[in-house]
Amino acid sequence: MSGFIFLYTTFPDEAAAARVARELVDARLVACANIIPGMRSIYRYGTAVEESQEVVAIFKLPETVGERAAARLRECHPYETPVVAAFAVQPDDATAAWLRQVTD
Amino acid sequence: MSGFIFLYTTFPDEAAAARVARELVDARLVACANIIPGMRSIYRYGTAVEESQEVVAIFKLPETVGERAAARLRECHPYETPVVAAFAVQPDDATAAWLRQVTD
Amino acid sequence: MSGFIFLYTTFPDEAAAARVARELVDARLVACANIIPGMRSIYRYGTAVEESQEVVAIFKLPETVGERAAARLRECHPYETPVVAAFAVQPDDATAAWLRQVTD
Repeated sequence: MSGFIFLYTTFPDEAAAARVARELVDARLVACANIIPGMRSIYRYGTAVEESQEVVAIFKLPETVGERAAARLRECHPYETPVVAAFAVQPDDATAAWLRQVTD
Repeated sequence: MSGFIFLYTTFPDEAAAARVARELVDARLVACANIIPGMRSIYRYGTAVEESQEVVAIFKLPETVGERAAARLRECHPYETPVVAAFAVQPDDATAAWLRQVTD
Repeated sequence: MSGFIFLYTTFPDEAAAARVARELVDARLVACANIIPGMRSIYRYGTAVEESQEVVAIFKLPETVGERAAARLRECHPYETPVVAAFAVQPDDATAAWLRQVTD
């Protein structure tokens, strides 16, 4: 019995995040996306410290589809090299059943 | 010495999240809740892809109270089957001491 | 080969979060900060349940700089005892390379 993950990434705006989220949910690669707008990111770019307005997206899925979901996410993401990181989560029983039921 | 977790869930609105958060903090089942409003969720519902406006809630607690906190969360949550997932965190020493001090 | 972490903390306002984020990115202790404004926190303070308006900050970094990043974060954080917790993440290859490249 394998586990579950959240995939964390960022998008330039809510419309781009929603478009990709719909594509991943429609393809049954993720069960759900939570898009958090109004995020401010501060990061190194070359020798400078830069800022952007972005949105956070958190995707919920079984680990078994993790590689395919991340590959598709990179394909349809508007950034050439999006920042994508997964972390393991322990859903409760009902959540686990639902995550498996709506993905494959 | 056991560890610490964050419990991640969503609510239909900030008022519902705040009501449940107050109940869990008051019962000493969680130390703290962070409620992030304005979240947009995109998810599968049957054969369709649906959207809702929701809020994110992140609860911080020792693992030892995790099962009781999650059970109470499900009881007082406005959804019949809320999406609830825990993940392990490593707080710094002062944070760990505080998380233990205000829960039991 | 060691791993990667996200450091999760909260600030009283976006300006304070951005100031600290710039300091940590500039010092090459974190690659990036995601600041999420408009967060409402509910927590125990003594015998009472209190509320504050805060912002969430999530810092992305290699585990190898985790201790130094957390120490500097505590030094320049406006709270005397900020709530700071790390969790392990698995970035994709391009993200992992970038996280290492911009920190040391």
